[in-house]
Amino acid sequence: MINYPGKAKSSYKKTVNYSNRGMDLEELINLSNEYYLQEDIAVIYKKPTPITIVDASFDSHGRVITKAYFKEPSTLDYNGLYKGKYVDFDAKVTKSKTSFPLSNLHDHQYEHMKNVLNHGGITFLIISINNKYYYLDGKDIIDFKENNDRQSIPYSYIEEKGIEIETKIKPRLDYIKALDKKHF
Amino acid sequence: MINYPGKAKSSYKKTVNYSNRGMDLEELINLSNEYYLQEDIAVIYKKPTPITIVDASFDSHGRVITKAYFKEPSTLDYNGLYKGKYVDFDAKVTKSKTSFPLSNLHDHQYEHMKNVLNHGGITFLIISINNKYYYLDGKDIIDFKENNDRQSIPYSYIEEKGIEIETKIKPRLDYIKALDKKHF
Repeated sequence: MINYPGKAKSSYKKTVNYSNRGMDLEELINLSNEYYLQEDIAVIYKKPTPITIVDASFDSHGRVITKAYFKEPSTLDYNGLYKGKYVDFDAKVTKSKTSFPLSNLHDHQYEHMKNVLNHGGITFLIISINNKYYYLDGKDIIDFKENNDRQSIPYSYIEEKGIEIETKIKPRLDYIKALDKKHF
Repeated sequence: MINYPGKAKSSYKKTVNYSNRGMDLEELINLSNEYYLQEDIAVIYKKPTPITIVDASFDSHGRVITKAYFKEPSTLDYNGLYKGKYVDFDAKVTKSKTSFPLSNLHDHQYEHMKNVLNHGGITFLIISINNKYYYLDGKDIIDFKENNDRQSIPYSYIEEKGIEIETKIKPRLDYIKALDKKHF
């Protein structure tokens, strides 16, 4: 996990902790997406957090939201375009060392993954488990869910079907490499 | 524009005004996207509005945002998947009857359109002008912008290069039909 701190200091402008520990998964993915965009590798963005605005007014900075609630998302957090293909995914951290609880995704998110597969897109999860990061393809997730009574995916299944994602300086999480291995 | 109000009353649950007048463009597109999803035609969603949260707390409903500002989006409002292709677009209303001002899109939105084209995706605008709706392909928009000093696209160019979008009961705005004509 320690990503060559010596090299990092000279080539990487962000501060302090060059290990990925301490950065949350979302931040790692956002930095990776920025890198993929800068290098013209992929066009992938995190969707804004969906909210329901209850009250808004105006202040000296313009329109200001004064009351809003978070909404449950019906899709996944990230989507975009890579090598002409539609990609759509989410990132999940599990503290369990032995399995990934399926309750991490809502029913309509599973429906969304199925829709993406049915229409020829690519969907997957980035799972942080046991201090490692895995790419787990949507097909393998749906397949597990539909053929098991278990409420969580065992770590052994993730190790077998998933692809471990390399952590680097740039990109922090090279999930596109895993995607390449699986689909291109 | 009046979409068979008789038929609409019996087959369509939403209330009152069966003409598209009075509904804003965003609403028409959202209803169309719901229809495309239900009919398993396309998987397209509006992205949530990006905001910057300044303050949040908790109330009886859970976490509540108490101060937030709207952020300028760096991408377009809608994206998704149709026939295996990545699609990415925005919807714009112009009151001018003679042209579409290019200032309707920010520079990074043009950059985003170029990125989408470069990576093999489809991008376009739905333009509401002169009480009509047009599909105008991203290539034609970029092409105009890069080869003209004019700050707005004349209506004649939209009529020539664009495709008029049919309005119906379901979907309200059949922009997928225009997409089909252009790309499939």
